[in-house]
Amino acid sequence: MPRDSDCVFCKIVAVELPAAVVYENESIIVFLDVNPLAEGHLLVIPREHYSSIVDMPPTQCSALFSAVPTLGRALMKVTGAEGFNVLLNNGRAAGQAVSHVHCHLVPRKTTDDLGYRWNAKKYSPGRDAQLTAAYHEALAQQ
Amino acid sequence: MPRDSDCVFCKIVAVELPAAVVYENESIIVFLDVNPLAEGHLLVIPREHYSSIVDMPPTQCSALFSAVPTLGRALMKVTGAEGFNVLLNNGRAAGQAVSHVHCHLVPRKTTDDLGYRWNAKKYSPGRDAQLTAAYHEALAQQ
Repeated sequence: MPRDSDCVFCKIVAVELPAAVVYENESIIVFLDVNPLAEGHLLVIPREHYSSIVDMPPTQCSALFSAVPTLGRALMKVTGAEGFNVLLNNGRAAGQAVSHVHCHLVPRKTTDDLGYRWNAKKYSPGRDAQLTAAYHEALAQQ
Repeated sequence: MPRDSDCVFCKIVAVELPAAVVYENESIIVFLDVNPLAEGHLLVIPREHYSSIVDMPPTQCSALFSAVPTLGRALMKVTGAEGFNVLLNNGRAAGQAVSHVHCHLVPRKTTDDLGYRWNAKKYSPGRDAQLTAAYHEALAQQ
């Protein structure tokens, strides 16, 4: 199984570092984030080391998210949250702090100080069609 | 296939409303968000209507995310982004604006004005162990 000997999350997978594990299966381990954005904030990580989600085979990527419904129900029960964010920061520019793919489940309440900075824009006329064509081309080349 | 006759995203699935579709398969449709946080911001939705991810069968939830590696590579190529966020807001308190499960892929650059409000805390001694036990109990009851 791919592993990076310097990776904190690989050490948690190998039980060389402690973590408050709440769930695990053959593909993933789920534990409390030690720097929680809210009580009960969970991290879901693959057992295998991938620094970027774009390098994960589709089946591995699917496995990373397959427990989210179950975990989400437990999260809402345990924390009393009204909702939650599923958040994966991919790349340093996106806020990825540990270079082993990980997905945050962040409990949310209407009154909290969390959430994404929602600075939405609009496309100028025709720009959306240009981008759509560029996506079709990029996807056809993969 | 479950559908909500008032749902904007169900209407996109049924091709009753237009969308800038960049990818689709038997489970999902992917299109440009009309109110983008950044150029090339994508929405991934399941063809079936679920208002909450906690109601999705694990296989459907997996299918929602299986194309993320492929889409992520295309997104970085098309937009020149250095990274991206995978974000699913579940519940109004979490920022969910359309009540049909949808996952945002938000292109990110180091210099942008986006990202999650990262107000991290610490657990008081023993609180993490209490929460871990509560998660074990909640997950055992499912």
